[in-house]
Amino acid sequence: MSGRVIVVGLGPGNPAQITPQVSRAVNLATDIIGYFPYLKRIIPKKGVRFHPSDNRFESERAKHALDLAEAGSIVLIVSSGDPGVFAMAAALFEVLEKNSLKWDNINIEILPGITAMMAAAARVGAPLGHDFCAINLSDNLKPWSIIEKRIRSAVDADFAIAFYNPRSISRPEGFQKTLRLLKLYCQSDRPVVFAKAVSTKEEKIMTVPISKARPDMADMRTIVIVGSSQTRIIQQNGREWIYTPRSYLS
Amino acid sequence: MSGRVIVVGLGPGNPAQITPQVSRAVNLATDIIGYFPYLKRIIPKKGVRFHPSDNRFESERAKHALDLAEAGSIVLIVSSGDPGVFAMAAALFEVLEKNSLKWDNINIEILPGITAMMAAAARVGAPLGHDFCAINLSDNLKPWSIIEKRIRSAVDADFAIAFYNPRSISRPEGFQKTLRLLKLYCQSDRPVVFAKAVSTKEEKIMTVPISKARPDMADMRTIVIVGSSQTRIIQQNGREWIYTPRSYLS
Repeated sequence: MSGRVIVVGLGPGNPAQITPQVSRAVNLATDIIGYFPYLKRIIPKKGVRFHPSDNRFESERAKHALDLAEAGSIVLIVSSGDPGVFAMAAALFEVLEKNSLKWDNINIEILPGITAMMAAAARVGAPLGHDFCAINLSDNLKPWSIIEKRIRSAVDADFAIAFYNPRSISRPEGFQKTLRLLKLYCQSDRPVVFAKAVSTKEEKIMTVPISKARPDMADMRTIVIVGSSQTRIIQQNGREWIYTPRSYLS
Repeated sequence: MSGRVIVVGLGPGNPAQITPQVSRAVNLATDIIGYFPYLKRIIPKKGVRFHPSDNRFESERAKHALDLAEAGSIVLIVSSGDPGVFAMAAALFEVLEKNSLKWDNINIEILPGITAMMAAAARVGAPLGHDFCAINLSDNLKPWSIIEKRIRSAVDADFAIAFYNPRSISRPEGFQKTLRLLKLYCQSDRPVVFAKAVSTKEEKIMTVPISKARPDMADMRTIVIVGSSQTRIIQQNGREWIYTPRSYLS
């Protein structure tokens, strides 16, 4: 008898941002698989098997989940944020495609979550209130030439841009080059939001003009949001709000 | 004594996709403001004042909320999806900016929700699993020349693209032109997902190659997701999954 694989997003960190749909799936599971810090966010139910793994083992994790489901388990794969945004859902389908006959009877479901850029945007106002794009700067997934072309196109389109995984320890120069390009293409007062560990106790959010943005303001837990040419900053009630108007005046 | 304005996202329709954080805010409110079909999604608590309004009255709604808060109310502004994505959060800040001194003491908070493109992506697989952008096709917010430039840039960057509000009754030709451009720029088998009323009882999801996409496949309740050149379709368990791999092979 074949089982199920449910891929869920736990949101960026605050338990109050986990949807009831995902919480129900957590209670259904017989096996829970994921990067170990994400599994720590789940309260273990009696009898449920936890399978924590290290970062960078997405494919192994997906294969493990499919094999357990094939044997009849109800397997939960846990992502931070939304599982469909630079996370485990795509990894699962990559593995599935290589051997779809073997795992043909498994019931697969993807349940969305609050992705980090939306949570970060909400904390500072509405910087993604008009057209925008999301770019993953994580290393070894695509050549730098593609990233460079995308940044150029995004600025040309005048999208607000959310950068995920801006600064890895193994390849920190990517974000340095990204900032260099943005300083070249954007007006110097373009607002840049650095949102670290958003919605957790360690949350730290800072907004600077692009001219003052430095690579060391970001790490792997930071979402970086760069405004469009229309993004505005307003002061209210002793604080600063960043938002992009809905309409575009060219 | 000044009150509060809390802008919340109810997600795309399924009550199980409303975060506990948003549900708590609903219970706090003394006044609830929003487009009338969204207010129908909230169970009225005794003594809470509902202020439904018609579409296209975003600015009036925001002003109303700020005025009620100024008089001491705890006002909830309700959006579908995420309030920061083509929704009420930006509308609020636009109004606030025009008269920030008047409303300086109000406590403002934005609470994220599951935006429609994430819910739609989850239903079909992981089409937004690699870099992507979101474009609002709603009329009268920006000139067609800007939309055309953005579509061109997005295809050039090889983003997957999510289109919001693709087809309005008052200006249906925008989406027709959009499809014409995409057919020109993309290979003919590029997958296009039409996700109507996602996560509700009326949900209807269809995937076609761009060569077979027609304007009448979308309405205002539809999210349209166009894959990148790398987006793949796989068959499993009697159904079709659409996903974009995490890595990019150029």
